[in-house]
Amino acid sequence: MTIYLDHAASAPVRAVARDAWLAASAITGNASSVHGAGQAARRLLEESREAIAAVVDCDPIEVVLTSGGTESVNLALKGLWWARPAGAEAIVLPDGEHHATLDTAAWLQTQGARIRAIPLDGVGRIDPNGFAAACADDGERPAALATALVANNEVGTVQDAAALAAAAASAGVPLHLDAVGALGHLPVDFARWRGDARDAAGLVALSLSGHKVGAPVGTGALVVSRHAALAPLLHGGGQQRALRSGTPDVAGAAALAAALTEAEAERVAESQRLSGLRDRLIAGIRTGVPDAELLGDPRHRLPGNVHVLFPGAAGETLLFLLDVAGIAVSTGSACQAGVAEPSHVVLALGRDERAARSVLRITLGRTTTDADVDAVLAALPDAYARALASAGR
Amino acid sequence: MTIYLDHAASAPVRAVARDAWLAASAITGNASSVHGAGQAARRLLEESREAIAAVVDCDPIEVVLTSGGTESVNLALKGLWWARPAGAEAIVLPDGEHHATLDTAAWLQTQGARIRAIPLDGVGRIDPNGFAAACADDGERPAALATALVANNEVGTVQDAAALAAAAASAGVPLHLDAVGALGHLPVDFARWRGDARDAAGLVALSLSGHKVGAPVGTGALVVSRHAALAPLLHGGGQQRALRSGTPDVAGAAALAAALTEAEAERVAESQRLSGLRDRLIAGIRTGVPDAELLGDPRHRLPGNVHVLFPGAAGETLLFLLDVAGIAVSTGSACQAGVAEPSHVVLALGRDERAARSVLRITLGRTTTDADVDAVLAALPDAYARALASAGR
Repeated sequence: MTIYLDHAASAPVRAVARDAWLAASAITGNASSVHGAGQAARRLLEESREAIAAVVDCDPIEVVLTSGGTESVNLALKGLWWARPAGAEAIVLPDGEHHATLDTAAWLQTQGARIRAIPLDGVGRIDPNGFAAACADDGERPAALATALVANNEVGTVQDAAALAAAAASAGVPLHLDAVGALGHLPVDFARWRGDARDAAGLVALSLSGHKVGAPVGTGALVVSRHAALAPLLHGGGQQRALRSGTPDVAGAAALAAALTEAEAERVAESQRLSGLRDRLIAGIRTGVPDAELLGDPRHRLPGNVHVLFPGAAGETLLFLLDVAGIAVSTGSACQAGVAEPSHVVLALGRDERAARSVLRITLGRTTTDADVDAVLAALPDAYARALASAGR
Repeated sequence: MTIYLDHAASAPVRAVARDAWLAASAITGNASSVHGAGQAARRLLEESREAIAAVVDCDPIEVVLTSGGTESVNLALKGLWWARPAGAEAIVLPDGEHHATLDTAAWLQTQGARIRAIPLDGVGRIDPNGFAAACADDGERPAALATALVANNEVGTVQDAAALAAAAASAGVPLHLDAVGALGHLPVDFARWRGDARDAAGLVALSLSGHKVGAPVGTGALVVSRHAALAPLLHGGGQQRALRSGTPDVAGAAALAAALTEAEAERVAESQRLSGLRDRLIAGIRTGVPDAELLGDPRHRLPGNVHVLFPGAAGETLLFLLDVAGIAVSTGSACQAGVAEPSHVVLALGRDERAARSVLRITLGRTTTDADVDAVLAALPDAYARALASAGR
């Protein structure tokens, strides 16, 4: 039985989500069809949209269902870019963002975008003043768009989302926030973060993913303000305000709604429980491996995130040794398709490449128990010693 | 109990697909993760890719999983456009294509593309010679790309896919074929259609959708030749040859593989059965409603497609009256999000707008029985009379 401590890569599917998917997939009918079968599907689709909107505090019509976080981020950044005001050509881009954002921004550079990079401090925080200055001006014009992670998916650092949104709003720049890692763990409140922003400026788009919160892989949404200027990424039948064509995945929407509703109901208690486990794990690692160093912000941190630098050891070796011991963890994002690269997030914290190859991300979730924490604490000192030995130290 | 005769809009989920989804969704682990849990997910993903490749006769690595037909078509057209040869700027576009193609092409016009339209004949067929001429030259340069439906989703007309692919290959133009409507009903054979085309020319991309063949909504694939020059639509972690980033939906892939495998095993017998039911339905309509006229190609036609013009009646009224009688049909594509517009496909057959508003699409599938055909034949004459009356005829 694997001890699964990689919840940030993908979380177990919740029973309520599986059951909602099963019930919905038994409804035959395209939600765009006019007949009764189609309308039954559409009713469930709209109820699901309402439930999702209730969790993240937006209007149901602002919930644009997607195939997951990567599509949501691509739709937000490319959609805002294609609908940008004339003359605006800069993207305000913090260092250490998720690859969905980084690689999309890099491609937009081939389409004429220029990047205004925002540094992270040593624990991964963005300075809202620097963000505001980059949005407003950089010796040129206001930016075309700005983006930021609400919480970093590798090191777990949580930003002041409201401050970033206010900065973008006062500069008149549209902002996308990637809430994939935060969802289910922190309050994700579109209306509050958007505040009294007007028209197409300020927070206008918010990325959500299902499979990090116990909905199936392949589900997600982009919250798109009704005031946003956004071009579609998928053209076709004109579904979902013509922002995301394609037959709506009603079963996926129902599963996402069920998972999010349950996650939100549990969130406060569960975050407290996970924070306790997390802090015990961090303290235990410090005792068992005195050389280990916690990366990311010790205070503004995702409840389930433990990200540790093990000096002199290869993260991959540690991962392998723990895997053999039946413990699943990560060296960072799972999204790099198995290619062992130094963590760009650790580099963005000002560490060197050696450090960026010596990290483990241990992420806890709703199935995590005290015994899981004990198991990883028992295994780590020996794994570290062996990883050091294999590195010739 | 609804008599569901709208299989082309969405087909019932097959039990094998639901079971495969359920089993796969119980595996926790991101297929991009290095640990054992991730690798178990990856194994199932790659087995699913192999099964899908076996059905459509391509290499497993050529199967790029997507969220469905609309994403596949968008990836194909935009991806080929962004990777086009320098100087090429035309898109060879038959009339009467699906809106995923038409609306994507319209957007690409805003990005500099020019359209070379290919007319349909009166039954919806494309002339391969005209297609070849448009690919090769139009008083300018070879086209940037060409696209065509293998079988029209509204009127059911089947093209000579091999001839269109050969035309594109000899012109040195990359071709996308949309096989969404054909899949499960006709042989869909990527290797045969691609033939001995070389490099990035000829058939290089083939769109597939899951929910038309009994896989869940939200599943699909784009077959992308290893020789194709294609830019990604979704940037991020670099999954799937970096052509489609995003956490792979393993459960969706397993469900798609199961549905396609079963559909392919049943295809020959089922197509024969459906053709028989279809022809009985067509004959019965002609007897019961002598004014009715079959549209589309009577010979080269999808086995489950019946598309009929009811002169003087509004298609929507007929649809409504049948719906009240417990029979679910369509006025055309379900993708127009409930907006009643004249069918652009019927217009492309050379009919007027009045005709394009007077059609019904009745599509049969694996749950369709003799009794279903009897029921619609019993209901249609009265529905037609009432629809004429309500139109003041």
